[in-house]
Amino acid sequence: MASIFTKIISGEIPCYKIAETDKFFAFLDINPNAKGHTLCIPKQEVDKLFDLDDDTYLELMAFSKLVARAIAKAVPCKRVGMTVIGLEVPHAHVHLIPLNSMEDARFISKQKLSDEDFKEIASAIRAQL
Amino acid sequence: MASIFTKIISGEIPCYKIAETDKFFAFLDINPNAKGHTLCIPKQEVDKLFDLDDDTYLELMAFSKLVARAIAKAVPCKRVGMTVIGLEVPHAHVHLIPLNSMEDARFISKQKLSDEDFKEIASAIRAQL
Repeated sequence: MASIFTKIISGEIPCYKIAETDKFFAFLDINPNAKGHTLCIPKQEVDKLFDLDDDTYLELMAFSKLVARAIAKAVPCKRVGMTVIGLEVPHAHVHLIPLNSMEDARFISKQKLSDEDFKEIASAIRAQL
Repeated sequence: MASIFTKIISGEIPCYKIAETDKFFAFLDINPNAKGHTLCIPKQEVDKLFDLDDDTYLELMAFSKLVARAIAKAVPCKRVGMTVIGLEVPHAHVHLIPLNSMEDARFISKQKLSDEDFKEIASAIRAQL
């Protein structure tokens, strides 16, 4: 069965898209730690990050860096953090999180954003790419 | 002033070393989220991960993958997570954390390990490299 992320890539499930290449896709996390929290994923459905072949892994990391630098320009924050956990969705994904404090990195305090908020932040990040 | 990590690389501050190349260094976090929690760093003292030049960044990610795969073989866990925060030490560092639950990824519950524990786990990880 297709992962929830594969359904997002295909458009079956809507998302606030940030970037797309032939192999990778970036979109806003809809349950964000902080405003601007973005997920970068390979289109290839592989569960664990470190099981990706070396080329795909490094290309995903390069893609994530481009997106992270755009987030850093678009979102007021001290820096952009990166986290890969993967205990919930079995499709490797890189969290890019604008950090102002350690709390933003803990996946405990979540931000409630409106559809308007999401659209605005996605547009601001895309404008920096 | 040299960062605490530069002092660890030089040997001025002792550590439980996991791996070293001409450009990178890996050692156990002494305040670990979980047994086997390892830090991978560039020898170059750059504060923010995404400010590293592209080559050094990708080489650090490749180095981190090698170490992560060794950790996954040496330490019982569901998977190895990766986190970069960097709000405390201004020298880019990749946390590799053996995960059994989300708690292991939150940087709240810390493990107390003995010198003997650290030596044993470092040796087990090195044996997989």
